[in-house]
Amino acid sequence: MIGLIEYNWQVRDEWLDWCEMLSTEQLYAEQTGGAGSILYTLFHIVEVENSWLRAVQNKQDVPYIFEDYSSLDEVKALSNTLRKEHALFLRTDLDAVLNQYVQVSWDNQIYQAKDILHHLIIHEVHHIGQLSIWARQMNKQPIESHYVGRQLKRVEEYI
Amino acid sequence: MIGLIEYNWQVRDEWLDWCEMLSTEQLYAEQTGGAGSILYTLFHIVEVENSWLRAVQNKQDVPYIFEDYSSLDEVKALSNTLRKEHALFLRTDLDAVLNQYVQVSWDNQIYQAKDILHHLIIHEVHHIGQLSIWARQMNKQPIESHYVGRQLKRVEEYI
Repeated sequence: MIGLIEYNWQVRDEWLDWCEMLSTEQLYAEQTGGAGSILYTLFHIVEVENSWLRAVQNKQDVPYIFEDYSSLDEVKALSNTLRKEHALFLRTDLDAVLNQYVQVSWDNQIYQAKDILHHLIIHEVHHIGQLSIWARQMNKQPIESHYVGRQLKRVEEYI
Repeated sequence: MIGLIEYNWQVRDEWLDWCEMLSTEQLYAEQTGGAGSILYTLFHIVEVENSWLRAVQNKQDVPYIFEDYSSLDEVKALSNTLRKEHALFLRTDLDAVLNQYVQVSWDNQIYQAKDILHHLIIHEVHHIGQLSIWARQMNKQPIESHYVGRQLKRVEEYI
């Protein structure tokens, strides 16, 4: 499970760096389908992951609004800051909570923590697949999506 | 891990059913980015998963060619047939092989079986994310991508 999170974090960073070549217009252009613009999609990935990972740790949700983190540098900084907070939990306490049930504040369902982990893993990969189409439609080469053969930065290196 | 495969299999079936509403032209239209057409993408997901899962079981690769399975019904049938073969392995022997190293026939790397499982999970979700964009660009509602709150058919039900 951790390997899939490490994959997502690394691919996310590669996409955030990839965004450096885009114009402001390209970063913010409303796309058809998905979450919205390219930059908003990356912000959304960060924000949603944070909410679910806080819930798994029984921490109160702290929503973030795109308007407050709407430059590429701000999205990168937010991702790095939140990830640092979660990396220690993932490295040390994750196994102990996987079978626990979690009540989240944004709906009235109770989910098992491992299902939440599955959900946020898929959430990011799904949105990254969408970015890859928009990239090609802009005549740009997307970030590679393979898992095998990719050297992954380990979760503890984010602490 | 099995939960993510169950998710992929179910979402794949939902997309294959979704395809029933498409015209032949829409099924085969070459898209920008991704693997090609909508139907080819679904075939590609099936074919790639089969190759990796056979490798993990130390079975010789049996490549499939789209030209031989190029109707929607044939892709559905191929997916069902191959999945049936793999479901028993996933249910009974997966845990025992996760840490084993696997030599695949299509490159000269050796991969750990659990990394191969991660790879094929991500491979499908990434391509499904791409389908969701093409769907919206055709003014059609894509299949939902959430993991939590989705009732999953269990691997053993595919046997």
